[in-house]
Amino acid sequence: MRISELSAETGVSVSTLKFYLRERLLDPGEAVSATQSNYTDAHVERVRLIRALTEIGGLSVAHCRDIVAALATTPNSFGDLLGVAHRALPAPGVDQPESEQVHRFIARLGWRVDPESPARRSLSAAVQAAQEAGVPIPEDAVSAYAEASLAIARADVTALLQEPDLEHMLRTMAVGTVMNDAILSSLRRLAQEHVGTSLLAGIDPFEQSAATA
Amino acid sequence: MRISELSAETGVSVSTLKFYLRERLLDPGEAVSATQSNYTDAHVERVRLIRALTEIGGLSVAHCRDIVAALATTPNSFGDLLGVAHRALPAPGVDQPESEQVHRFIARLGWRVDPESPARRSLSAAVQAAQEAGVPIPEDAVSAYAEASLAIARADVTALLQEPDLEHMLRTMAVGTVMNDAILSSLRRLAQEHVGTSLLAGIDPFEQSAATA
Repeated sequence: MRISELSAETGVSVSTLKFYLRERLLDPGEAVSATQSNYTDAHVERVRLIRALTEIGGLSVAHCRDIVAALATTPNSFGDLLGVAHRALPAPGVDQPESEQVHRFIARLGWRVDPESPARRSLSAAVQAAQEAGVPIPEDAVSAYAEASLAIARADVTALLQEPDLEHMLRTMAVGTVMNDAILSSLRRLAQEHVGTSLLAGIDPFEQSAATA
Repeated sequence: MRISELSAETGVSVSTLKFYLRERLLDPGEAVSATQSNYTDAHVERVRLIRALTEIGGLSVAHCRDIVAALATTPNSFGDLLGVAHRALPAPGVDQPESEQVHRFIARLGWRVDPESPARRSLSAAVQAAQEAGVPIPEDAVSAYAEASLAIARADVTALLQEPDLEHMLRTMAVGTVMNDAILSSLRRLAQEHVGTSLLAGIDPFEQSAATA
């Protein structure tokens, strides 16, 4: 298909498609003349991926490129896959060192996490930033978050193990983690509203949910 | 203090501070001469807030301005506060309608959520984007996420109710939700690594954690 058809198929404007091409997020089409290239279904899929990562996932072009590059690698093992996927994900504050507080916290949880894992440093930066923003997170809340994160990871890994091979797993891990961050962020706001509104109405928000579950 | 001292105090460069002033994220200092203004501790606090929201929270300048504007309002009630805080938070995909799937899902959970709540539409957009990105989230996983989000909201609202007044609650809700999204995102990656690594080593990752908790 031509670039105008790729645009019609994906709902992404031709100028944005040209931007994706310039930024090397999208592979060039096969040249059929000096001014025209041919695009395939693989391009349609890639454009939908980029749009989802940037518009809903909130990723920058640079971070999007990291994810796209990770998808082109072939992991040798599950451990390898985890490393590739996590290194490709945005990790704000990763240039800061891990804090003593976070180090002790992870040790207390008993989580098996590499001492060099970037998420240790991102977590340290996020905890410190919350403090600097005047909203330090209480110790109890971090523990509740960790427990909830473990339940989420259980669901993630269960879904991951249903993939047929390591390539599909890598895609689900790298892209799924970004997209599911967006899903979780919305669910969290809905849950806050439910809990707040229920308490205002004198109803136990947790009873309600347990009864329905 | 002078702008150079504000810079030294916060670790934010003078040119970035001038950018914050131009973008009206930061109130102007009190003019003491034609070329010099005086900044206060309130400016130090605001600069730290903006840096945390943009660098770690990943907010754009426009979204940051929404949060800062929300902090200047005085909520009349807890319900009002929730509305102000949630409207100020970034909600990608909020211009799309709520999907039938999300509508039924929230009804099944029994959550008390306004039919017009923007998070309904963001959730719809995120679920659809995950599908378009080739990583549709399984129904089981969304349910696990909702359950985990409820546990997170419980921790959030518990922390909120410890605030002395509605102004402080608003700040904790608006700023805390952004900062805690960053904390959760890191915890989620750590939990994925823990679960993945434990399974590879033939250890039950959930037993381990329950024993330590």
